[in-house]
Amino acid sequence: MGGGLCVVLVEPRNPLNIGAAARAMSNFGFIELRLVNPYQVAYREARSAVNAHAILEASQEYPSVAEAISDSTLVVGTTAAGHRELQHPLRRLETGGRLIRKRLDAGSRVALLFGSEKFGLGNDAMSHCHWLMRIPTREEHGSMNLGQSVAVCLYELIRSKEAAKAKPEGKRLASAEQLERITEALLEALRQSGYVHPRVSVSTEMKIRRLVRRMNLAEHDAVVWLGMLRQVIWKLEQCRDKSE
Amino acid sequence: MGGGLCVVLVEPRNPLNIGAAARAMSNFGFIELRLVNPYQVAYREARSAVNAHAILEASQEYPSVAEAISDSTLVVGTTAAGHRELQHPLRRLETGGRLIRKRLDAGSRVALLFGSEKFGLGNDAMSHCHWLMRIPTREEHGSMNLGQSVAVCLYELIRSKEAAKAKPEGKRLASAEQLERITEALLEALRQSGYVHPRVSVSTEMKIRRLVRRMNLAEHDAVVWLGMLRQVIWKLEQCRDKSE
Repeated sequence: MGGGLCVVLVEPRNPLNIGAAARAMSNFGFIELRLVNPYQVAYREARSAVNAHAILEASQEYPSVAEAISDSTLVVGTTAAGHRELQHPLRRLETGGRLIRKRLDAGSRVALLFGSEKFGLGNDAMSHCHWLMRIPTREEHGSMNLGQSVAVCLYELIRSKEAAKAKPEGKRLASAEQLERITEALLEALRQSGYVHPRVSVSTEMKIRRLVRRMNLAEHDAVVWLGMLRQVIWKLEQCRDKSE
Repeated sequence: MGGGLCVVLVEPRNPLNIGAAARAMSNFGFIELRLVNPYQVAYREARSAVNAHAILEASQEYPSVAEAISDSTLVVGTTAAGHRELQHPLRRLETGGRLIRKRLDAGSRVALLFGSEKFGLGNDAMSHCHWLMRIPTREEHGSMNLGQSVAVCLYELIRSKEAAKAKPEGKRLASAEQLERITEALLEALRQSGYVHPRVSVSTEMKIRRLVRRMNLAEHDAVVWLGMLRQVIWKLEQCRDKSE
């Protein structure tokens, strides 16, 4: 999917942010980075940064937004919450992400624009956009760090709806037989240690049995518990034998 | 919702990352930041950083993971893709985020742990976790920047499923009457300029009418178009009058 999307940083000023944007792209499998009028020192420094070498090496520089996006059929600008350019549809990232995914799946080329650290996207850059997208930050503190907003937007694009619904992978649970063996061992240890009476009442036995079931033990952990309890019982029996 | 969650940075080394984590927390409405054995210089520098002052000021320092999480009933560790600690359930962020939200909604206190920039969470820190969560990065480049992974995880927690399904907000579309007025004005301009014959054929008229409908004009834009076309027609008529 990543092949159809290019990330366009408009007038970025901080090499750390350029590097961070490239790193997030690499993390999430997007490869095409374009820079419009980057601050040259920042661009040079970023290129020497680690962790996203290939993306920075292959990144392209453009003198204007129009040239950076010329091959795209959908151009989306990102903006801080609250900032709304007249006449531009503004979509939350969840909604906008879905629309972008749809276009990428259909083979379209999409440009995703991020403005400079200080000022965000200017009106000129926005005028090239089909619509704007905002990360749902708090109104009181809407403006995100550039590298972080690139990461969050790209995450939304690769996010799997199916994984969100997925049941947590099941652990192999202990069998009833294992649980009963643990119950017996625990009762034995409690008898030996004097926690319960040697002739355990039925109600106590049931309490302990339920206690063990509530542990919701995985098969592997049941084996460990049984081993621990048997060792304790062995030691308790030794003590008893010695004191007798 | 943010009230029940604390972000725990275990042995962070870079003040920029501590500041970035705090900034993402502020962006997404989470307030409680805890640091386990932060590198002191980094911690002092981060506290002087802008953009998330309140969160850094209120952040607490702890000598051990156990103490930092003691009041939490769910402890979740974050880890890079692929790194899997034995016996710990590992969940993708989409799945894990859903489980965390559920617990927060129920009023539980949840601790979300992030390891140091270089090594991630160590085995000792992981042993305090109920389960682990991973951001679905590429296998070839799984390790994310600390500030970016905090931002992505918190975004998943505040992300709205409803917003993802939401239809893009409707624009107020132009009425059929407006569209017909534009069609007539456009035809008039095309006549005056000689693009079409003064007596336009029915099929041409229908082509132009459909062309205008395909513009999918908003009400506001229809007004602008009509104004532009009328001005052009006025100028064309002036030219014709002069040349006659």
